[in-house]
Amino acid sequence: MTTMPSGPVLDKGLANTIASDSRMSFIDGQQGILEYVGVDIDSLARHSTFEETVFLLWNCRLPKKSELDGLVAQIRAEYDIPAPMWDLIRAVPKDAVPMHVLRTLVSALSMFDPEVDDASPEANQRKAVRLLAKTPTLIANFDRHRKGKPFVKPDASLDMAANFLKMLNGEPATATMARALDVCLILHADHGFNASTFAALVTISTLSDLYSAITTAIGTLKGPLHGGANEAVMHLLDEIGDMSNVESVIRGRLERKEKIMGFGHRVYKAYDPRATYLKTFAKKLAEDTGNLKLYEMSSKIEEIMAAAVGARGILPNVDFYSATTYYSIGLQVDLFTPMFAMSRIAGWVGHCIEQLADNKLIRPRCEYTGPHGVKYVPIDDR
Amino acid sequence: MTTMPSGPVLDKGLANTIASDSRMSFIDGQQGILEYVGVDIDSLARHSTFEETVFLLWNCRLPKKSELDGLVAQIRAEYDIPAPMWDLIRAVPKDAVPMHVLRTLVSALSMFDPEVDDASPEANQRKAVRLLAKTPTLIANFDRHRKGKPFVKPDASLDMAANFLKMLNGEPATATMARALDVCLILHADHGFNASTFAALVTISTLSDLYSAITTAIGTLKGPLHGGANEAVMHLLDEIGDMSNVESVIRGRLERKEKIMGFGHRVYKAYDPRATYLKTFAKKLAEDTGNLKLYEMSSKIEEIMAAAVGARGILPNVDFYSATTYYSIGLQVDLFTPMFAMSRIAGWVGHCIEQLADNKLIRPRCEYTGPHGVKYVPIDDR
Repeated sequence: MTTMPSGPVLDKGLANTIASDSRMSFIDGQQGILEYVGVDIDSLARHSTFEETVFLLWNCRLPKKSELDGLVAQIRAEYDIPAPMWDLIRAVPKDAVPMHVLRTLVSALSMFDPEVDDASPEANQRKAVRLLAKTPTLIANFDRHRKGKPFVKPDASLDMAANFLKMLNGEPATATMARALDVCLILHADHGFNASTFAALVTISTLSDLYSAITTAIGTLKGPLHGGANEAVMHLLDEIGDMSNVESVIRGRLERKEKIMGFGHRVYKAYDPRATYLKTFAKKLAEDTGNLKLYEMSSKIEEIMAAAVGARGILPNVDFYSATTYYSIGLQVDLFTPMFAMSRIAGWVGHCIEQLADNKLIRPRCEYTGPHGVKYVPIDDR
Repeated sequence: MTTMPSGPVLDKGLANTIASDSRMSFIDGQQGILEYVGVDIDSLARHSTFEETVFLLWNCRLPKKSELDGLVAQIRAEYDIPAPMWDLIRAVPKDAVPMHVLRTLVSALSMFDPEVDDASPEANQRKAVRLLAKTPTLIANFDRHRKGKPFVKPDASLDMAANFLKMLNGEPATATMARALDVCLILHADHGFNASTFAALVTISTLSDLYSAITTAIGTLKGPLHGGANEAVMHLLDEIGDMSNVESVIRGRLERKEKIMGFGHRVYKAYDPRATYLKTFAKKLAEDTGNLKLYEMSSKIEEIMAAAVGARGILPNVDFYSATTYYSIGLQVDLFTPMFAMSRIAGWVGHCIEQLADNKLIRPRCEYTGPHGVKYVPIDDR
C-alpha cells in the first residue's frame, strides 16, 4: 500500500520509498516468486537462453524466431573490442582485482565509441548491445593476460556463454558447461532495484550516457554487501576442503551463530526460485566434469542446513549453487562477481532505457545536522 | 517538516525524500544562503583557500595552522601519479571527451593503489587525499597529450590551483589567475545531495571502495542536467561573439522564451551566494589578463537580464561567472566540467566518509507495472 505524505519523508536506505516503476522484474519474497516480465524464472532457466532473456527484458515480451535471430546476430557482431583496448588490457597490472579492472575497461570502451554521447533511442540500443557483447571479451582476456596466456579472440559462431568459456579456457567448452553458464546468466540478469541498478539510474537520470551508468553499476556491484556473496560461498567451501569436514565446520558455525554464506536471503523467505533448477543441474555438471566432490559437499551442507533450525531449516539461495557452478566450469573465485556483472548488464541497461523513456533527475534531500552562522576566524586567531 | 508514513511512499526523483543527514553543507535557496559546516560561502571565497575548505568539509571545523600545514603537505606529496598512469594517458584517443577520460583514468588509479580495498578510516583518509591530489594531474596532462605537448609533472611547491595551471599551461600562472581558480574550487566543493554525490553514496553503501564511488560521481556529474551548465554558458558567449551582438541575441532569446544559460537557479531564488565574490573578482581578472571583452559582455548580459522580467529580473548563478573565469585563465570549454569534478571530489569523498561512519545499504523499492503469469511458449509456437 502506498501513502502520500504532505512533507518530506526521512527514509535512510530508502527501504520504504518507491523510487520508480518498472515492467522488467517482479519479486515476491514470501511466495518465492521471481518473474521477468511475467515469465517465471524457473521456466526461463529450464527452457530459455540468456540471449532470449535479454530480448524479453529489453522488449518486455518473448521474441519470435526471426527477432531472436536478429538480436543474436547483433550481439555476435559486437563481441570483438576496438584494437587499442587489447593494449589497455596488456597495460593492466596482473595482480589487480578483477572488478576494478572491469570497471576501468568498460569505462575505457566509451572512448572508442563514436556514438558514446548520442542519446537517441536507436544509438542507446546499439550501445546496449555493445556493452553486453564486449564485457565477456574484457573479462576473459584480462584473466588470460594475468595468467601470462595469449589472448583469445571471440568466436562469433558461438552464443555468449560458449564464446566466453572458449576465450577463458582457450578451448571449446562442453555443451553442459556452456549451458550451466547460460543458466547462471539467465538467473542473474535482473532483480528489481538492487543497489547497482539504482546507482546506474541515478547516473543516467542526469542524462549522462550508458557507459557512465554501467561503470557506476559495476563499481556498486563490487561492494561486499551486494555482489560478493557467491565469492564468499566459495571461500566457505575452500575452508571446508573435504567431505569429512563438512559436518564439523557447518555445525560449528551454526553453534557459534555465524552466518553460513549461500543460505537464507534478505528477500526470499521461501525457496529462492533461482536456486531450484541450478540445484538439479549441478549434479549433471558434476558428473560431466567428473568433479563430484564439490557436488557431494554441497548436498551434504544443504542437508545439514535443512534440518538445522527447528523444523523449517535454512534454504540455499542462488549464490550457493552459482558458486559451485562457476567453480566447476573453471572460473577462478575472483571472477564470480564479474560473472554477475556480465549477466546483470542486461538488467542495468534495460532499467536505464526505462528511466530515459520517462526521465526525472534523481536527487533526494539531505537533512543538515551541522552548525549555523560559524564565523570565519583568521587562522592565526584560532 | 518531516512526516513518517506507515507504508511505502512513491516519490519518483526523490525530491520529497530525505535520504540521509550530513554536517557538511547547508542550503537555503529562498534566503540565498550556502554554508559549509556553518561558515558562509562568501567568507570562504574571500578569505579561505581550497585546501583549507577541504579540511573544513572533511573535519567539520576550520583547521589550526599546524593542521592545515599537515593536510597541505599530504596533498602535495600525492600530486604525482604512478608511472604506468602516464602510459595510460598516452593511450587515450586525442579526440576523447574529457569527462569520459577522467572517469576512466580515476577508475584506473585504483589498480595501482595497494590500499584500494582497505576500508579502514585511516586508509580511506589516505585514499581521499590521493584522489583529490592526483585528479588535477590527470586532467592537465590529458589536455597536454591531446594537444601534442609534452607532459608537465606536478610541482609540490605550489598549492592545488597554481600547480594545476602550471601543468596545464606549461608555465607558472599569475597570482590572480591562480587565485581565481582557487575561488572557483572553493565555490564548487560541496552542495548537499546533488545527483553525483547521491550516486557516490549508493555505490559506497554496498561497502565498495572510494575509487568506485568517485568514478560513479564523475560519470553522474557528466550529464547535461548536472555538471554541464557552465559549458553551456560559454557556448552562449561564443554564439554572441561580440559586444555589438549582446543586445540582439539576449533580447531575441528572451522574446522566444528560451533559457539563458547561467541565469536563474533551481534552488536559489535570491542571489546565488556563490556568484557574489566571483563577480567582483571577474573584473580584476579581466584587467590582469587583458581580456576585458568577455567581462564587458558578461556585465552587459547581466544588466539586460536584471531589467528583463518585470521589476525583479533574473539573477546570474555560479555557472555564469565560473564559465568566464575558466575561459579567462586559459581553459578549453570541455574542461569546465572536469574542473567541477576536481573541486567536488572534496564533497564526494566527505559525504562517502560520513556514509561509512553510519552505513545502511541504499536500496529503494520499485513498483512493478508489468504482467504476471505469462506462460513460456516455445519459440516456434509464438
